Amino acid sequence: MHRVHNFSAGPSQLPLPVLKEVQEELLDIQGMGASIMEISHRGKIFGPIYDQVRERLREALGLDDSWRVGFVTGGATMQFGLIPMNFLSQDGRAAYFHTGTWSKKAIADAKLFGKVDLPFDSSESDFDHVPPPGATFTLDSSTRYAHFTSNNTIVGTQFASEPDTGGVPLVCDASSDFLSRPIDVDRYGMIYAGAQKNVGPAGVTIVCIRDSFLASNKVSDRAIPALMNYEQHLDQMPNTPPVFPIYMVNLVLGWLLEQGGVTAMQEKSGAKAALLYDEIDKDDYYRGTAQKESRSVMNVPFRLTDEAAEAHFIEKAEAAGLHGLKGHRFVGGMRASIYNACPMESVQALVDFMDEYRRTHG
Amino acid sequence: MHRVHNFSAGPSQLPLPVLKEVQEELLDIQGMGASIMEISHRGKIFGPIYDQVRERLREALGLDDSWRVGFVTGGATMQFGLIPMNFLSQDGRAAYFHTGTWSKKAIADAKLFGKVDLPFDSSESDFDHVPPPGATFTLDSSTRYAHFTSNNTIVGTQFASEPDTGGVPLVCDASSDFLSRPIDVDRYGMIYAGAQKNVGPAGVTIVCIRDSFLASNKVSDRAIPALMNYEQHLDQMPNTPPVFPIYMVNLVLGWLLEQGGVTAMQEKSGAKAALLYDEIDKDDYYRGTAQKESRSVMNVPFRLTDEAAEAHFIEKAEAAGLHGLKGHRFVGGMRASIYNACPMESVQALVDFMDEYRRTHG
Repeated sequence: MHRVHNFSAGPSQLPLPVLKEVQEELLDIQGMGASIMEISHRGKIFGPIYDQVRERLREALGLDDSWRVGFVTGGATMQFGLIPMNFLSQDGRAAYFHTGTWSKKAIADAKLFGKVDLPFDSSESDFDHVPPPGATFTLDSSTRYAHFTSNNTIVGTQFASEPDTGGVPLVCDASSDFLSRPIDVDRYGMIYAGAQKNVGPAGVTIVCIRDSFLASNKVSDRAIPALMNYEQHLDQMPNTPPVFPIYMVNLVLGWLLEQGGVTAMQEKSGAKAALLYDEIDKDDYYRGTAQKESRSVMNVPFRLTDEAAEAHFIEKAEAAGLHGLKGHRFVGGMRASIYNACPMESVQALVDFMDEYRRTHG
Repeated sequence: MHRVHNFSAGPSQLPLPVLKEVQEELLDIQGMGASIMEISHRGKIFGPIYDQVRERLREALGLDDSWRVGFVTGGATMQFGLIPMNFLSQDGRAAYFHTGTWSKKAIADAKLFGKVDLPFDSSESDFDHVPPPGATFTLDSSTRYAHFTSNNTIVGTQFASEPDTGGVPLVCDASSDFLSRPIDVDRYGMIYAGAQKNVGPAGVTIVCIRDSFLASNKVSDRAIPALMNYEQHLDQMPNTPPVFPIYMVNLVLGWLLEQGGVTAMQEKSGAKAALLYDEIDKDDYYRGTAQKESRSVMNVPFRLTDEAAEAHFIEKAEAAGLHGLKGHRFVGGMRASIYNACPMESVQALVDFMDEYRRTHG
């Protein structure tokens, strides 16, 4: 079996033991004589899986009974519209931290439904930074929620900690650093994440909403189609869910908890990112694109000082078994995505290659 | 490898050769060293798959260039809201054929957006029939579209042919008989289907919209979040799609075309359904629940005259390797779902069991 070192930004690498388990039981799950994809979502096999995945999610995130969890579809992008549809009335007000391409889409959808303030906006500097740790923001007293993108995959920035909004509940698009570190859940009203970076394949989106947030913010004067109403999804299945992606999220969460949960992931991510950024910062042969204080430990974009050589670098890297390093067109150059499932060995292989490339082409 | 005869209503049986191919390449697709789930949806592997699946869909359905196709999420239920959001303005009018649980949900969502007429309604008789073949309906001249559920999984009814709406374009929820027979696409404005009955695993929904229908019905005076706008999805990927479900739909469509396409499926379905209904009608030991003229060739619900014995029948069937026969709670009794991937051998095994059960317990 051939496996590359995989730095894809998403969909991205999955834990190998999980993939092997999926492969093994693909035609016959738990000896019942059918694939997980061929059986009822309300039956004896998937029912317990659906319970287990929510339990594991609660355990991994540290959510108590005041939280409800659900599995929806459409990715984070679908939630950009559903969040204001559910929680922002026409005369209501929400704050959005504008830190990149994803917040831009979220803001555009929110403006269709209510008033939007931007307490932070780094669009003028190509989104190369996010608010510094400890930054405080004074929001209008009528602000219903404050939305932020905890990690920005394209530019490679990440909030080091939650922005201080003076008690206004946070709504977080955590798609690209979900379950990579402990978070202070008490400050959140809602956390959502597309699975395809850190917890599974593309095709399912995790939504966690605090009961009190739902109770105090649910818009009552707007007609919302049944399946677009978040309440329909929380802790229940209103219709056939994406069974296979959810089944895989359950296996990835099992792997994550076995590895030591978010604390272990944070330690591992920190070590992987440090190794890579140290290589980038060693001299001026390579350079990072995000401001140092805002650097992400999940996505590490970098350039060659000699930009003309970048296509050659990526080609040689691919030939050396280092896959998915081409940077997003918005930033150019290279990007190494080193999510939870990316092993230290892959980062070491990349650093060795970068070292060798500098030596032989420098 | 243990495999049962699978009569699940959905998610349901998939073609075995497809599952085997998926299993084989699960860790390493096309020798690239990663799973189909671990690579970019815009890369060299999935790009051609995404083109191929749309080509195969056009070929299987017989769609020419006046049609656009897309892959969305949320199942048919999500489309219940998106269809009127996109195509029914507040002063607009749509007709809905009310033939079961699914049309009920579709009607409820449509009423949030515009005026809804019900040219046909079988709710008074527990939805045991649909309009007879050739039935014509005179609709209000301002009707934008006429929505119908071509096959009703719960009660086991199916439109034998499209209702005659005097030229008003049809919008069809074809989830449970998609690609099971040729259809007269010229009469449709939109065809949509959750994949999990006839063309893949749960987690992706196919949407086909005719250009002229889009042009003449697209609502212009309503703010629609980006990803809820159908135009964003047609023939393109606005965001990360459900990669694995789409990859599987592509394989199932390859299998279907190899088998001879929808004409071959229609022939096979007819033979399977005839075998089963003949067994049901043989005497009054079993009985069907839908009116004969409205019977579905996809879902065959049936009862024992001795209803108290049904739990025992289902238990014995399960023990004999006949899975998924428990009927929907709305109808009770048994239901055999015999979608495209269900082989004749499975139906024969069921009929043999029914015969034996009658003989030994009659």
